[in-house]
Amino acid sequence: MRKKIELDWSVGFCTGIEDVPEKRVPAAVPGAVQLDWARVEGWEDYTYADNYKHYAWMEDVYWSYVTKLQVPEIKEDECLFFVCMGVDYKFQVKLQGKVIHEQEGMFTPFEIDLTGKAAHEDELEILVFPAPKRKGAPEGRTEADQCVKPAVSYGWDWHPRLVPLGIWDETYLEIRPACHIKDSEVSYCLDENLENALLFAEVWLSSDRYEKIQWEFYDRNGNLVFCREYYDLSGYVRMEQAVEKPQLWWPNGQGEPVLYKSVIKLIGLNGLVLDKKESRVGFRRVKLTMHPGAWEYPEEFPKTRSNPPITLEINGRQIFCKGSNWVNPEIFPGIITDETYRNLVRMAKEANMNLLRSWGGAIINKDSFFEICDEEGIMVWQEFPLSCNNYIGTPEYLRILDQESKSIIKRLRTHPSVVLWCGGNELFNAWSGMTDQSLALRLLNRNCYDMDPSRPFIMTSPLTGMKHGYYRFRYPDGRDVFQVMPHTVATAYTEFGCPGPADAEYLKKFIPPEELFPPRPGTSWEDHHAFNAWQSPDWLGLDIIEHYFGTSDSLELLVERGQWLQAEGYKCIFEEARRQKPVCSMALNWCYNEPWPTAANNSIISWRTKPKPAYYAVKAALRPVLASARIPKFSWRGGELFTPELWILNDSPDCVPAGKIKAFLQIGEEEIFLIEWNYPMLESNTNMPGPIVRYCLPHRDVDRIKLVVKVDGCPEMNSEYTLLYRATERKEDGNHVRMLNF
Amino acid sequence: MRKKIELDWSVGFCTGIEDVPEKRVPAAVPGAVQLDWARVEGWEDYTYADNYKHYAWMEDVYWSYVTKLQVPEIKEDECLFFVCMGVDYKFQVKLQGKVIHEQEGMFTPFEIDLTGKAAHEDELEILVFPAPKRKGAPEGRTEADQCVKPAVSYGWDWHPRLVPLGIWDETYLEIRPACHIKDSEVSYCLDENLENALLFAEVWLSSDRYEKIQWEFYDRNGNLVFCREYYDLSGYVRMEQAVEKPQLWWPNGQGEPVLYKSVIKLIGLNGLVLDKKESRVGFRRVKLTMHPGAWEYPEEFPKTRSNPPITLEINGRQIFCKGSNWVNPEIFPGIITDETYRNLVRMAKEANMNLLRSWGGAIINKDSFFEICDEEGIMVWQEFPLSCNNYIGTPEYLRILDQESKSIIKRLRTHPSVVLWCGGNELFNAWSGMTDQSLALRLLNRNCYDMDPSRPFIMTSPLTGMKHGYYRFRYPDGRDVFQVMPHTVATAYTEFGCPGPADAEYLKKFIPPEELFPPRPGTSWEDHHAFNAWQSPDWLGLDIIEHYFGTSDSLELLVERGQWLQAEGYKCIFEEARRQKPVCSMALNWCYNEPWPTAANNSIISWRTKPKPAYYAVKAALRPVLASARIPKFSWRGGELFTPELWILNDSPDCVPAGKIKAFLQIGEEEIFLIEWNYPMLESNTNMPGPIVRYCLPHRDVDRIKLVVKVDGCPEMNSEYTLLYRATERKEDGNHVRMLNF
Repeated sequence: MRKKIELDWSVGFCTGIEDVPEKRVPAAVPGAVQLDWARVEGWEDYTYADNYKHYAWMEDVYWSYVTKLQVPEIKEDECLFFVCMGVDYKFQVKLQGKVIHEQEGMFTPFEIDLTGKAAHEDELEILVFPAPKRKGAPEGRTEADQCVKPAVSYGWDWHPRLVPLGIWDETYLEIRPACHIKDSEVSYCLDENLENALLFAEVWLSSDRYEKIQWEFYDRNGNLVFCREYYDLSGYVRMEQAVEKPQLWWPNGQGEPVLYKSVIKLIGLNGLVLDKKESRVGFRRVKLTMHPGAWEYPEEFPKTRSNPPITLEINGRQIFCKGSNWVNPEIFPGIITDETYRNLVRMAKEANMNLLRSWGGAIINKDSFFEICDEEGIMVWQEFPLSCNNYIGTPEYLRILDQESKSIIKRLRTHPSVVLWCGGNELFNAWSGMTDQSLALRLLNRNCYDMDPSRPFIMTSPLTGMKHGYYRFRYPDGRDVFQVMPHTVATAYTEFGCPGPADAEYLKKFIPPEELFPPRPGTSWEDHHAFNAWQSPDWLGLDIIEHYFGTSDSLELLVERGQWLQAEGYKCIFEEARRQKPVCSMALNWCYNEPWPTAANNSIISWRTKPKPAYYAVKAALRPVLASARIPKFSWRGGELFTPELWILNDSPDCVPAGKIKAFLQIGEEEIFLIEWNYPMLESNTNMPGPIVRYCLPHRDVDRIKLVVKVDGCPEMNSEYTLLYRATERKEDGNHVRMLNF
Repeated sequence: MRKKIELDWSVGFCTGIEDVPEKRVPAAVPGAVQLDWARVEGWEDYTYADNYKHYAWMEDVYWSYVTKLQVPEIKEDECLFFVCMGVDYKFQVKLQGKVIHEQEGMFTPFEIDLTGKAAHEDELEILVFPAPKRKGAPEGRTEADQCVKPAVSYGWDWHPRLVPLGIWDETYLEIRPACHIKDSEVSYCLDENLENALLFAEVWLSSDRYEKIQWEFYDRNGNLVFCREYYDLSGYVRMEQAVEKPQLWWPNGQGEPVLYKSVIKLIGLNGLVLDKKESRVGFRRVKLTMHPGAWEYPEEFPKTRSNPPITLEINGRQIFCKGSNWVNPEIFPGIITDETYRNLVRMAKEANMNLLRSWGGAIINKDSFFEICDEEGIMVWQEFPLSCNNYIGTPEYLRILDQESKSIIKRLRTHPSVVLWCGGNELFNAWSGMTDQSLALRLLNRNCYDMDPSRPFIMTSPLTGMKHGYYRFRYPDGRDVFQVMPHTVATAYTEFGCPGPADAEYLKKFIPPEELFPPRPGTSWEDHHAFNAWQSPDWLGLDIIEHYFGTSDSLELLVERGQWLQAEGYKCIFEEARRQKPVCSMALNWCYNEPWPTAANNSIISWRTKPKPAYYAVKAALRPVLASARIPKFSWRGGELFTPELWILNDSPDCVPAGKIKAFLQIGEEEIFLIEWNYPMLESNTNMPGPIVRYCLPHRDVDRIKLVVKVDGCPEMNSEYTLLYRATERKEDGNHVRMLNF
């Protein structure tokens, strides 16, 4: 069997490729050169204030990792491999000073057979080149438009400029039997009616010195489904096995994410197990389909095409996709652990999400991310690392993209959670300038077709009919999201944002006390994206908060107000998108998580796993079945006619029994009964519009009203909406004059 | 050198694959089994009346071609090949009763080395299978949705149900030197600024028994540009040669379609030429680009993508594409000759067209079509044989499509005239039901990317922003094309039709005298698509003609009226599309030609090369530079305010000098001066809007008025528009009552 040997690494930098580092420090592998250096130099945390700026120089030098190989004795029937799952980004591997491997691209793992080539105490070096930057490009993401390094680290509106480098994934020596499994893959084919599967396994062996291959297959309870033996000694074995009535893998909310286990054992000439490969199989079929009614449009001549499909169908069932945009959970991918992924994916599941869009500006996650998503039933929309740039198809760029995309496809295609390939983010918009003709995207379509034809592929998001944005509670024209969203039409809202500040206590961890209040541009607030991050106004949205509330006298009050807008804004958009089913089939807010502590952001979870109030609002809006209200606007005054529409939303595979809904208005301590609705049974995955309340708001001296919708006997379906309220116009105080614009 | 030996074929049919035909008749090769049989049986012309119906049974039997090989003596340094450029559709080749080749697909040529295998008088058989039909499909084009046979012959609204079968392209024996050129291809790479080319030639030899390869390259005047010799004896030779400042190939109206000639000679050990391959090279670069201003849309959040690009750029210059939809010029592709192509392509050039969309319902044309387009500067938009069906990506269908598309790409990619690959016709519309996810289209993207990445590829037409239809002069809502078109927006009008009847004398050639007038459904008029061809009303458009003119008392008058509507309709649409430049970059009417005599059709040329009046109207509308008028509607009455807008249209690469335009209204013999416009100089490829006439129409007793726009000193820019006119409402006659709806 195999035996891993961990290596002790040190790292140092030099400015020329031929230079030798003056100093080396212990290196954590996997990790990042920046963190190793900072640790030894005693630098302050890069997440505090503007400390990250001190790391800028590190992206422009060479970093040399070295280790002295501690090689035990290798027997005759053994071999020695150096295995590396990823180096960020361009690098050489040297043994005793001689280059034995060169590569550009962080997503292609490599292994080197060192048997008979490396001696004990030999020096193995990984020389990491400076971060790639296109010559002549202005500073920022454009520098990354001729490489396959994620663009986000070159600076984004929620990510500081900090470009990681180094060994970012598992790296070790391994002693293997001389005859071992070089590679194996299990795949399947489901019949049309999903009743039977044909399972395939391919196994590549390193030699023909074995007796047989034994293939075991277990169900989710560990019961053996079959065990077969194969005596093909050609070094490549293709095995096939029918599986009758397999239990299907379902995404969260639709059924169980059933996983089977495959164990492929290589049995040696002595009858003992030489090597084995375990993997999991989730049986499911995915298609990208047209929504019901889609073919009826366009109606008129001259006639253009119908919108491209974006409704995901899993196992023959069209599914409303609820979720979020996943970004890199750390600036430095090397320090992401299984726990990082597990916590965040579980929180997504708990928030009733079923899909994460793994955004093209960030990294392709490590294996454990996908394993956890497989287990939790969280579908993954996986983008290739292209985002908001025009990635011109030069031969050199296409060569790297070809290599990296093939590695990514091969690594991820066995995961049932991965349901969609996408070329990258917003590539068909003005700020990117790519088109359907861009060679990079045609190459990705080609590779996905060649290597993974049963999984859908789209070139980018948004496509026609899909929508991105806006990223404010209040639009520049003065309308709020309550006023805008019911009038938009989209086949999928694949990005939309409502920014909100982080918790006050959390802000204090990375904003120096003297800068904390009031928030100002030019301080750490700006470094952490509260100001001048994207279009004006900024992610803190001071002007929007002041528009609704006037000035805030304390950090705590400001945060409470900003978080209120974020929470109600997200609730409004998610529920509205669900109401627009089946034309709309997807609602993914921008964004889920963040890679470092932002002061304000569209995220619903502060780094690392701290939910904002908006997280709970989203969770409520994404319940499979709920009573919901379409509310005409956020801000109300006494005397106005309050006219929320009642709805029941159901995206579950189950019917909802008939029942009774009552709506109430809470004003201070008062609870006013508004309406009662006896609704009939709802079919599975179907919404139902109910009556429209018409109620003249009384004059009261409160600052908010609450619409509460209660379902008799089903409190888990209850909903509430906290809205702004003013009894009368207030002019007594200059700060409130702008409130007249309500 | 090579020597061709023509073969004498006979053909007969049988109902089972094992059967032997009872009777054989002489066969014309290339040709079609239907024509051979009809010739000998003395059947009447399939184009007359409903004779084509008698051919129906022929699509369901096996057809056996046989020939006795007349093999001369083959010397030791020679070999013998059977060469066949195409058999329609599925077939076996047998030598002395033994199957030596099997194939499905008419677009993949094949050759068989018979050296030492075939003796004199041996029987060679080509057994053609019945026409492919998907089991369970209803009669019509749907039967063709699992094959790569053009769907049109299964019946279309301008094509009878008549499914050709047989040897449809050149087929012969060939004696070759044992050492000969198996294949060769010349390609090039132009530098960014189009100043220098790198020319490549690849040559595959059948053996290494040669001295050298000699490569000669000649300019358009026959002057030698270079001559190089290569002594590589590996059997595969790749040659490279820089060409400085090559003259570029330009489409019609933009420059000369310059072609160079390459001659690759295989020189034997005795110093003599063993074999040679001639080919032509047209240096040009093609891109599909966004039109000026395209990136500014969409403006609003939430934001979808910008429209996909459809503006063709040739040699760095965006070109307004003017042309038509090319369909198969014969029902039986085997009888298409070089002359067929030459006449039709030259007529397109004379009509100022620069692009033909080779429609996906029809065949991929023979080589000579593309050679003629290369010579005449006519760009070709080439579709693969998919049209108006859902071609489900079953493994068997994908296998044939893969083979056929690779053959097509390899054959056509050296032609400069071919500027665009397209997956097929109207595949993303309801009546087809395919999407961007369809495996067939992803396969075509893959093959075009792999084999021909520098040529654009689109999956279908229309894409978003592009428009197809309508196909009437008058819409169901009562508006005419003059009223509709100025209010439509499209990036490209890639299909639009205005039907018109054929000439009266021509109609008499295929409609029996007793059916000729008045036209009625259920007669040969219907067989030839005048009635019940597409949506009601039909291609003759009797109700539209009667709407404008009342009943027609003679065939001649009916034809004149129908042709008037067609001519003015097409002029209106083409000129309006040109006015909408640069948002719109393409105007292609449906359709150019036809495969048999239609009684009424959207075509502008009756089968085979008989122009309708609409042809001349289109020719006028497509002049590079012309005075034009946007006219609010077709039908006018005395007392109405006549308000045409004057324009100058210029899509040439030249400026138009300043000048003077006068507009006149001709009413009977009167010529009324309306307006004079002194226009400034126009830039190349730029239109200019001029003044709007405002003139109150007088009351006169005429049935038409004519707007005449004259350019001082440039009569070639003059335009005229003949419009319907009535002095007053006429109620005297029941037939005219409906004219009140004008």
